[in-house]
Amino acid sequence: MSDFSRLSLNSATTKRWTLREAVDGCVRAGIPAIGPWRDRVHEAGLEEAARMIRAAGLAVSSLCRGGFLTAADADGQAAALADNRKAILEAEALGTRDLYLVVGGLPAGDRDVVAARARISDRLAELVPFAHEHGVRLLLEPLHPMYAADRALVSTLGQALDLAAPFDAADVAVAVDTFHVWWDPALREQIARAGWEGRLASYQVCDFNLPIAVDALLSRGMMGDGVIDFPTITSWVRDAGYAGPIEVEIFNQEIWDADGDKTLATMKERFTELVLPHA
Amino acid sequence: MSDFSRLSLNSATTKRWTLREAVDGCVRAGIPAIGPWRDRVHEAGLEEAARMIRAAGLAVSSLCRGGFLTAADADGQAAALADNRKAILEAEALGTRDLYLVVGGLPAGDRDVVAARARISDRLAELVPFAHEHGVRLLLEPLHPMYAADRALVSTLGQALDLAAPFDAADVAVAVDTFHVWWDPALREQIARAGWEGRLASYQVCDFNLPIAVDALLSRGMMGDGVIDFPTITSWVRDAGYAGPIEVEIFNQEIWDADGDKTLATMKERFTELVLPHA
Repeated sequence: MSDFSRLSLNSATTKRWTLREAVDGCVRAGIPAIGPWRDRVHEAGLEEAARMIRAAGLAVSSLCRGGFLTAADADGQAAALADNRKAILEAEALGTRDLYLVVGGLPAGDRDVVAARARISDRLAELVPFAHEHGVRLLLEPLHPMYAADRALVSTLGQALDLAAPFDAADVAVAVDTFHVWWDPALREQIARAGWEGRLASYQVCDFNLPIAVDALLSRGMMGDGVIDFPTITSWVRDAGYAGPIEVEIFNQEIWDADGDKTLATMKERFTELVLPHA
Repeated sequence: MSDFSRLSLNSATTKRWTLREAVDGCVRAGIPAIGPWRDRVHEAGLEEAARMIRAAGLAVSSLCRGGFLTAADADGQAAALADNRKAILEAEALGTRDLYLVVGGLPAGDRDVVAARARISDRLAELVPFAHEHGVRLLLEPLHPMYAADRALVSTLGQALDLAAPFDAADVAVAVDTFHVWWDPALREQIARAGWEGRLASYQVCDFNLPIAVDALLSRGMMGDGVIDFPTITSWVRDAGYAGPIEVEIFNQEIWDADGDKTLATMKERFTELVLPHA
């Protein structure tokens, strides 16, 4: 029999489901944890979301997502800080320690990546005391370089660890999402580094499909459908000491159009085949 | 008056033009060098291509391209070596020292990037003596990570330099193409490293357009149309000691559909505005 005790459904995988439907889907499938996106939490209402997840006996593996910290103007920066503080309170209310941050890309018309990265660092320093106070760990997620300009100017795990370095590992850590980092020639060593620095805080699995989807954000695929070597990367994550939840987060129109229960069933099969034996 | 003495047209920018048309276009535009693609050289015939470029008074800044070195089977490896030896002879005949290599992605159905990268290294070692004998320098070009699976498992300049390290800098060097590397958080330091290692052998300029084109290969744009900070990257290349040709290589359907002479005029304007003052 397979062991799904570490499996978690990131709610984006079943995008059409409300939080209620996703919670019920996890219970039906025997998946013990969920990583909700904030839009579905807001829709349900924060307190009701926390209550329904708890009542269903599910753990919250993470909250997606805060971030977008690159604004160059004072208003944009204040808005980003306010939204991230709200996300920190939401993570606390939902009973998860881990808040994913997608750090943000270039402001419109701006091309200075060096300055934008410095602003990420500055905003992070402003957020950390608040996160610490609320027992929330900020997870820096490197995104695939094809999203550098419009989503995240943190593109490698090494860069995320460098950005995290000034902060306590209990406050700022990193996430490994196979889709975003599989291509990185330094991946093995940076996963190991994340482990020994005590910052390897979350592991998301999702394949990289080819050809790249017309909407490049939707190139994420079910494990086994793309080019990623899950046994190898998963063993690196294991060898770095990671023993936490493994979230499945897939943005893919075909999967979104499919029946959610079938998606969860496929997810469990592929997890059993490609991930679990190496985790 | 602007100085176009370092400007070179990569023939892919005016994809519809034959080599003859591209050569004539460069002469009309006062562009002193060309970087031809092999398909257009073959079409013209190697000797005739060399003759017509020489007769027009143009320099050949590089030849595009060899590579695709990741085959796992003996036949595929032999075919790759044969094709690359042919490309080396073509570079020699055309009077250019520099042959671009796009190293290749994963063989169909293969997911082992570590082993595929080791094969790139092995094939390179087999090619270097032949290249050396013919006075041709093999240029490792890191490609954007969105092409890692199907085009090139060398994705960063640092990785290209590591791969080049066992070989003499006169035989194996690296190319910087802004489109492929602009996002790299280690770019400044790796360009500097390429300089002090004597391996910074070619500089190609081309913008990164958003949204990513439906055919992801065609997201390359005219300098100034996308997100890349040409002044900054060009100054890093200059500070690393690079004083060679600057090739414009753009794959973009709209540009391909446009009049070639107009494309060259725009190229000269944008080069003058964004690149030359910092080169």
